[in-house]
Amino acid sequence: MSKTIKVFAPATVANVACGFDVLGFAVDAPGDIVTMKLTDKPGVKIVAITGDGGRLPLAAEKNTAGVAVNAFLQHLNIQQGVEITIEKNLPLGSGMGSSAASSAAAAVAINELLNNPLTKEQLVPFAMEAERIACGAAHADNVAPAIMGGFVLIRSYEPLDLIKIPSPENLFCTVITPDIELRTEDARKVLKLDITMKDAILQWGNLAALIAGLMQNDYALIGRSLQDVVVEPMRSMLIPGFEEVKQAALDSGVLGCSISGSGPSIFALTDSENIAINAGNAMQKALHKIGLSGKIYTSKVNAEGARII
Amino acid sequence: MSKTIKVFAPATVANVACGFDVLGFAVDAPGDIVTMKLTDKPGVKIVAITGDGGRLPLAAEKNTAGVAVNAFLQHLNIQQGVEITIEKNLPLGSGMGSSAASSAAAAVAINELLNNPLTKEQLVPFAMEAERIACGAAHADNVAPAIMGGFVLIRSYEPLDLIKIPSPENLFCTVITPDIELRTEDARKVLKLDITMKDAILQWGNLAALIAGLMQNDYALIGRSLQDVVVEPMRSMLIPGFEEVKQAALDSGVLGCSISGSGPSIFALTDSENIAINAGNAMQKALHKIGLSGKIYTSKVNAEGARII
Repeated sequence: MSKTIKVFAPATVANVACGFDVLGFAVDAPGDIVTMKLTDKPGVKIVAITGDGGRLPLAAEKNTAGVAVNAFLQHLNIQQGVEITIEKNLPLGSGMGSSAASSAAAAVAINELLNNPLTKEQLVPFAMEAERIACGAAHADNVAPAIMGGFVLIRSYEPLDLIKIPSPENLFCTVITPDIELRTEDARKVLKLDITMKDAILQWGNLAALIAGLMQNDYALIGRSLQDVVVEPMRSMLIPGFEEVKQAALDSGVLGCSISGSGPSIFALTDSENIAINAGNAMQKALHKIGLSGKIYTSKVNAEGARII
Repeated sequence: MSKTIKVFAPATVANVACGFDVLGFAVDAPGDIVTMKLTDKPGVKIVAITGDGGRLPLAAEKNTAGVAVNAFLQHLNIQQGVEITIEKNLPLGSGMGSSAASSAAAAVAINELLNNPLTKEQLVPFAMEAERIACGAAHADNVAPAIMGGFVLIRSYEPLDLIKIPSPENLFCTVITPDIELRTEDARKVLKLDITMKDAILQWGNLAALIAGLMQNDYALIGRSLQDVVVEPMRSMLIPGFEEVKQAALDSGVLGCSISGSGPSIFALTDSENIAINAGNAMQKALHKIGLSGKIYTSKVNAEGARII
């Protein structure tokens, strides 16, 4: 009988304020779970998906988990039957790397079932192919941290150059996902094609300082660096209550707060679990005040990435 | 009799390829030497300048060393007579932080003569005031590393936020200064006010990776990151032979090569003293081929900054 394995891949926060398109990190929870086994019938088959309200496609070539597995098999030139079951725990279109979590888990699962011919880092391109069908572009800023864990910097795409950035042990993340949906494609449309040199300099100064702060366990510097003068001013207009939620988080003592990925989720980082929890409550209250609500997720930054459970 | 001290402050490479306006580093040599003593006659007086071919002003309010000392005294509300002698070893208008070296040395000297009321980092703003008269803007990317040593990141100017970036011990720098002069003001004029988002993302990805490479002693990553898609394409047009010199350096095995400051000096970084020397010769040859020549400086990256000698 063929072995069945389960792989968990975590939610991820891409962009991280000043790191638009080049930085992302993984959180401990929530995450998607992919169950996978090899079969004798050729072809990749999505057997079932739970937790998605029937919204995700079962056709393997349209499903991010299916696309990642197919890309992996094609790369290694393997003909192999595969059955996949997906347990979605991440809200769709939330800016928490929902599509990435499923494809990351699937890539790690197929690699494990075939006795790990590739390293985790080498799996990233297959999950990136899945991002292409999910959001129109083969971004790595969610799939790389979902697979590799921690903070991952994408220095370049051609060639793909992924750099794992060491980060402090006590870094907690609060994410609030407002009950509205924002498609990555739409969030990209509001971006300008040009930015001022002045803003670009501020942004790269902050990103460079954020990397230094993470690597030196300098929480205050991390906080000072979590500023986005390029993307947040544009995208935050698509997120009702963004300013109020951010202010509530900052008033709770978090290090910094910005849009998670392309939104509408909003993340905050802090060095204290208590502050992370209090900030979540305060952010929720701020949403309530304008007649909205959201789901709160609080967890540590995840150092490990996708893992077999 | 009043104590006389001598302070050496090193040449500096600002911008460092991808770190336009936010990053600079110091080299071991060359550098300027400021000799200073306190006097009973009020006022700051430049007694003599050597090595400048008579081109620098003796009037304290127009001389970068004089401006730095006056700014320091004014800040501490001290009435004090000061006599300054400047030994210029850096070529003027070369892009090696010539104006910064003199003001950095002067700021460290006056602080020392008054028994160090301020830290090195706190001296930076006074030397920045000198940059304002030398090149029209109070930049810190030369004066901060000239005073503090090593690589210094300027995260923000308001408030001034300077971050010393640890770097590998074996990092050598070759600088070639072509025998042409380029004023910082002119070099700024060719800069665009807007850049594409695509270039900005490439630039901040490279800068973030450069910081990670420096902090992790990852020479290969430092090399991959030393790319400038924003400023070098514009400014290099003002430097005859730039492409040939850069290619000669890269062919010699350096990690990376770009414009030093606003040019015309060109710097290369490497992890080997031999390569640094060979690269200098190759860069010189490349200049000769187009009928120009230049002065070569090869030294280690300087960790200490301005120092009493």
